[in-house]
Amino acid sequence: MSSRFARRMDVMKASEIRELLKVTQRPEVISFGGGLPAPESFPIEEIKSVVTEVLEREGTRALQYSTTEGDPRLRAIIAQRMNSRLGTAVEADDILVTSGSQQGLDLTGKVMLDEGDEVLCESPTYLGAINALTAYRPRFVEVPTDDDGMIPAALEERLSHCNAAKLIYVIPTFQNPSGRTWSVERRIALLAAAARHGVTVIEDDPYGQLVYEGETPPSLASMAHGVPVVYLGTFSKIFCPGMRIGWLAAPRGIYEKYALVKQGADLHTSTFTQSALVGYLERHDIDAAIGRIRDLYRARRDAMLQALEAEFPPGVTWTRPRGGLFLWVTLPRHTNAREALVHALKRDVAFVPGGSFFPNGGHENTMRLNFSNMPEPRIREGMARLGAVLREMVAAAPAQNAAATP
Amino acid sequence: MSSRFARRMDVMKASEIRELLKVTQRPEVISFGGGLPAPESFPIEEIKSVVTEVLEREGTRALQYSTTEGDPRLRAIIAQRMNSRLGTAVEADDILVTSGSQQGLDLTGKVMLDEGDEVLCESPTYLGAINALTAYRPRFVEVPTDDDGMIPAALEERLSHCNAAKLIYVIPTFQNPSGRTWSVERRIALLAAAARHGVTVIEDDPYGQLVYEGETPPSLASMAHGVPVVYLGTFSKIFCPGMRIGWLAAPRGIYEKYALVKQGADLHTSTFTQSALVGYLERHDIDAAIGRIRDLYRARRDAMLQALEAEFPPGVTWTRPRGGLFLWVTLPRHTNAREALVHALKRDVAFVPGGSFFPNGGHENTMRLNFSNMPEPRIREGMARLGAVLREMVAAAPAQNAAATP
Repeated sequence: MSSRFARRMDVMKASEIRELLKVTQRPEVISFGGGLPAPESFPIEEIKSVVTEVLEREGTRALQYSTTEGDPRLRAIIAQRMNSRLGTAVEADDILVTSGSQQGLDLTGKVMLDEGDEVLCESPTYLGAINALTAYRPRFVEVPTDDDGMIPAALEERLSHCNAAKLIYVIPTFQNPSGRTWSVERRIALLAAAARHGVTVIEDDPYGQLVYEGETPPSLASMAHGVPVVYLGTFSKIFCPGMRIGWLAAPRGIYEKYALVKQGADLHTSTFTQSALVGYLERHDIDAAIGRIRDLYRARRDAMLQALEAEFPPGVTWTRPRGGLFLWVTLPRHTNAREALVHALKRDVAFVPGGSFFPNGGHENTMRLNFSNMPEPRIREGMARLGAVLREMVAAAPAQNAAATP
Repeated sequence: MSSRFARRMDVMKASEIRELLKVTQRPEVISFGGGLPAPESFPIEEIKSVVTEVLEREGTRALQYSTTEGDPRLRAIIAQRMNSRLGTAVEADDILVTSGSQQGLDLTGKVMLDEGDEVLCESPTYLGAINALTAYRPRFVEVPTDDDGMIPAALEERLSHCNAAKLIYVIPTFQNPSGRTWSVERRIALLAAAARHGVTVIEDDPYGQLVYEGETPPSLASMAHGVPVVYLGTFSKIFCPGMRIGWLAAPRGIYEKYALVKQGADLHTSTFTQSALVGYLERHDIDAAIGRIRDLYRARRDAMLQALEAEFPPGVTWTRPRGGLFLWVTLPRHTNAREALVHALKRDVAFVPGGSFFPNGGHENTMRLNFSNMPEPRIREGMARLGAVLREMVAAAPAQNAAATP
């Protein structure tokens, strides 16, 4: 007898890391694990008054079924904000409101992927994208990536060996998990390669507004010039994630496909949360709020970078992100980050081992650290404990690591 | 070159009916089209005070990321309500909170269906289920259905001819679109057939609490005795649809698969709306509110049934639902309901032609009428206009219809 389940369920596995990290809900745990925003940045008072107003002014509308594409007012605000911030030329009709940008990833898989199609991605890439797309059973082709983004020659080489390359999935600004930002040149090269090979580009941009220093290169969507780029955005990192509101912007001809599958997936995103967000955006200055979030996270990033210098053993390297929520640590080659996590959890410190971010495995000597969720004293304390764990591990296997480190 | 899109997009078509029905958003249109609850039933004042309280008491929690399975308090309340109302024996851990029960359908397709697998369903069945499951490219096997549910001999015959029957999808109580309710005997027969053939049953129950008369037979989930039954429920029809909160209850071993795909689909359902619903359920008597909804809809159903008697031409038949939102009209064989819709829209009346509810097509002489969304005077006015349209159509083709009607 065949299985009760679809074949795709054979490749969808519960993450053992997720099980380990369930303990991070205990308040004593210092977590560098999830990508959680700082709860003190949530505009609770503003939301309270806005929701009251929304219910008074348009209660029946805010609680009723609505259109799949999303609240027309919200779509217009999103288009206008994209255009002024990113230099795109999108209209309200190009915007599909999603239940978080995670849903944008799921819809992408559904619209684009047949079993065996190739998805090219950065190495490492976002774990949630791997999870969402795996349900559609593609083959992930990891493209070697340095501090400036995917290496163009490597991308070209990988594309030329693909049988059915459908998507290039990238997070070009303040990447998850690495914290890296692509240079303009690499962005141009990516679009050129996508055009040559007729491949759709997915630009995932949840962190682009969380800039702590420097200029951010233009978005892929703003310089696509006919290359199909689907842009994924979210309010989770600049407003609050609990409302689950994201969006995607897609060219005509692709947009309609997304709307069709969105309807089957959940009819539409909550009218209530969309109305609340519209009320907030109309009455409050979200850019001022984002400015305060930047100041908060910049200080936390700096605290973490200082602690890395002070506490982590020699032979460990890390990225210095100019924005976003994460930095990326590379341990000596034979130091296993999963094992480090087990030790760290005993001291009530959590992080995500980096191996989870490589769809084809390996790279067990890497780790992702989140710096947005914990206040600075907790960051310093947690990094001291984590540094001690790593110093002990490296000290226990010095010869092996010395031999292996180039 | 292969298509930019997945093959499944070839079979996912925008509904022309949906395009036609977009006009129902004009306030002058009397709509029997959608399955919209009466907006006057939404507890706006209660939600206003509850949301304020939630934000004051647990704002950061209500706005932060949360667990995929849902708010533990909501899962516990749902389990308790299911057990007391349906006689099930589910626990909080068996409940997965979904973004509306539409998402439960999408997750079902993802967990269960490979291309070509068979889904057995009532004939007619819920359009939204057809849309959600079509993305997974099953073969729909319609099972002949009478006023008591699927006909057991026909179900057995269809099952015996299936190659890979995976699901039997049913709405046994106040069905959409027919308004029919299965007898106990038919429910028992369905479970026995599912057990013999090793097929999972999906019991979709969005309307079960909207009872206007008589006793409702026990739910399939309450008498499954080891047959895998996945129960889909929703708060859309008894609270408000704009929050998009539904749930599913699944046996262990199946539940975990749903949680896995839910995570990839949207991480979790809005924490904010879940918290608001918990607040409402803790402070207010939802059963009293459901009682008021029943009284409201019963009167509307009666108004529609009276108008059918008075206004519709001879040769037309209809169901007399004991609950739910819909009744089902069968026109003389050669009267086309899509054509009737075009005429009706010119008189500002809308409904859904019944052909859309048959996954394999046909049955163009049927229509679904919703009676929950319009007040009684509007129901009477709309039915008078619709009756005039149908009388004209039937009069224009009397010989054809007389010859065709058995």
